[in-house]
Amino acid sequence: VRAGVRTPDVISLHPGTAGGFDIRVGLGVIDRLASILKEEAPAHRYAVIADRNVAELHGSRIGRLLETGGLDAEFFDFTPGEASKTRAVWATLTDALLEHGFGRDCCIISLGGGVAGDLAGFVAATFMRGVAFVQIPTSLLAMIDASIGGKTGLDVPGGKNLVGAFLQPRVVLTDPSFLATLPEREFTAGVAEAVKHGMIASERYLEEIEANTDSIRRRDERTILELVRGSVRIKSEIVGDDVLEAGRRAILNFGHTIGHAIEHVLDYTLPHGFAVAMGMVVESGIGETVGITAPGTRRRLEAALHRLGLPTAAPPGIDAQSIVAATGMDKKARASRVRYALVSSAGSCRPGTAGRWTVEVPDAVVLDALRNRPAPVSQETTDV
Amino acid sequence: VRAGVRTPDVISLHPGTAGGFDIRVGLGVIDRLASILKEEAPAHRYAVIADRNVAELHGSRIGRLLETGGLDAEFFDFTPGEASKTRAVWATLTDALLEHGFGRDCCIISLGGGVAGDLAGFVAATFMRGVAFVQIPTSLLAMIDASIGGKTGLDVPGGKNLVGAFLQPRVVLTDPSFLATLPEREFTAGVAEAVKHGMIASERYLEEIEANTDSIRRRDERTILELVRGSVRIKSEIVGDDVLEAGRRAILNFGHTIGHAIEHVLDYTLPHGFAVAMGMVVESGIGETVGITAPGTRRRLEAALHRLGLPTAAPPGIDAQSIVAATGMDKKARASRVRYALVSSAGSCRPGTAGRWTVEVPDAVVLDALRNRPAPVSQETTDV
Repeated sequence: VRAGVRTPDVISLHPGTAGGFDIRVGLGVIDRLASILKEEAPAHRYAVIADRNVAELHGSRIGRLLETGGLDAEFFDFTPGEASKTRAVWATLTDALLEHGFGRDCCIISLGGGVAGDLAGFVAATFMRGVAFVQIPTSLLAMIDASIGGKTGLDVPGGKNLVGAFLQPRVVLTDPSFLATLPEREFTAGVAEAVKHGMIASERYLEEIEANTDSIRRRDERTILELVRGSVRIKSEIVGDDVLEAGRRAILNFGHTIGHAIEHVLDYTLPHGFAVAMGMVVESGIGETVGITAPGTRRRLEAALHRLGLPTAAPPGIDAQSIVAATGMDKKARASRVRYALVSSAGSCRPGTAGRWTVEVPDAVVLDALRNRPAPVSQETTDV
Repeated sequence: VRAGVRTPDVISLHPGTAGGFDIRVGLGVIDRLASILKEEAPAHRYAVIADRNVAELHGSRIGRLLETGGLDAEFFDFTPGEASKTRAVWATLTDALLEHGFGRDCCIISLGGGVAGDLAGFVAATFMRGVAFVQIPTSLLAMIDASIGGKTGLDVPGGKNLVGAFLQPRVVLTDPSFLATLPEREFTAGVAEAVKHGMIASERYLEEIEANTDSIRRRDERTILELVRGSVRIKSEIVGDDVLEAGRRAILNFGHTIGHAIEHVLDYTLPHGFAVAMGMVVESGIGETVGITAPGTRRRLEAALHRLGLPTAAPPGIDAQSIVAATGMDKKARASRVRYALVSSAGSCRPGTAGRWTVEVPDAVVLDALRNRPAPVSQETTDV
């Protein structure tokens, strides 16, 4: 375990041997932006990359914080949405930085959700062979998932995130007060990844979520701070152990093999978190069938997701066979075989034979789990 | 010093803490391609990236070696020349790999000169966030320079190599027997980088070059093997000390600040090595003027380059002022000031004040060094 807690609001992540960095988690941590940058990512100039919505919402505040801190910064924006995670937008941003005279001694800051992080991160990873990078996640998904792990990426005709690079930021500023302005649907989708973290690594954290579903949905400030802090700790610990995805990090894919397949079949019209919620339920069912997951796990998960406003089964219109077919296209398919990261019980994953964290599952089992929607709970929540 | 010699033909490079890799230098080492790949870069499938000329010259032999070794390989080619080092060609190659079903467990092999290495390396660095990479350099420049150091890159409208990534290969197969088919001009240009290695790090190596200019020009097999081996050792040692270009590695830029500026002014019609030869002469002059370089160094360098068939001064038609202006566009300009890596004498660089390996030089000094073509030797060789 390489991730530790230094002060109440600093979670240090030490990915591999490359030196660590801090994730500063706290309400109002953004107000210390300039001093944190001077300490953790000193640079000649700063380029803030954000989509136009986020730039409009938070740009002037961030700009003021940088300016009063005496830092030279410029903003570069892009059209909101996953459709901007392309080589074309990456090229446009890179060329804009060059035109504005940014050099190797600059620092690139992503301000926004997962798209901004992936896109700005890939700009930073490839700009003059890599420059300093800082993340300011503003969505729940970005705070507890996308900003931790050093993944950057673009979508290409062949699939999502098939082009990219690993790049660890110098520091992440995670301020849950940004979540006040997040649309309901996007907030709820983010909660699915928090549930996932509980499912794969901490029954105690899962229990806290189960005990606080109402105050999570109300976005009670202290509850959300604890939710974010707990999730950041779990993901940091898993990533710190396995930066390059050689082993245990695979458990973060729980719910994602089916989730990605559902997203693909629905042409990415569904929020990622909703697909992950569905995927976790199906994969719990798969696990119970093959004897890896403790009986009752799927039921418990469905109940929790339901109370959080998350779906628990794929929309009825989708053909199960098409979802199975889509799993084969997942980039985690190594040597062309689909493997699943399954939980052993709510809050725990264990490696299987030969120390592997994933298993191959026959298509028939996957089909059964997809078709078998046993709980009445799940049927009420297919309306996504 | 982290680079060492294990057996006569294996030079191990340990860049940073990330684990080392071997550069296998030897006549006929390519014949062991399949067994070396199985050992150093085992993969599900291999993608060989080469320009069409190199693919035509060496493709069938490489293909046979892979096939008889039982390895699954496919070839992907591109139009020869620096003009292929673009985001468009990178995208085309990446999409072709995806269409052919290559996944995270593949290995990308660059076969060719610097362009193939930079381009295939950037494909490997960004394909599914990075896959295994192997280099088979076929030009002298690629063998002794481009294949060592982990640099990959593309040219963009703003300049050369402004987009890229650091990626260390799993292994480099350096077989000087490929050099037999290299065009004269390209071979000679490569020798300039060998001279540079002597100038910055080993007077003994420089003396060997000076003593063997004729057999180098004749491409005597044993002489070329020693030339390549010596150069690979010097560059490996420098890069192994300083993978991310934080310090001493800057000495590899000797001759390159002026060299790149000349290339830029001539719109890249000059072979890189020719520009570096000119740049080294001018920068030796600069160093002598500012008192960093021992008197007589420029003269000695000019004589050696001349005997090797390399130019020693910028073509007479170029305006010195335009070269100085172009130095300001070099991406090594940090905080907008141009710095030079200068030798203290033939075979040695020393850090200056504050431990820095580069110095700022007033434009007037650079202009003088550019205009001042003192030696008769240099005037005979401006015809490039």
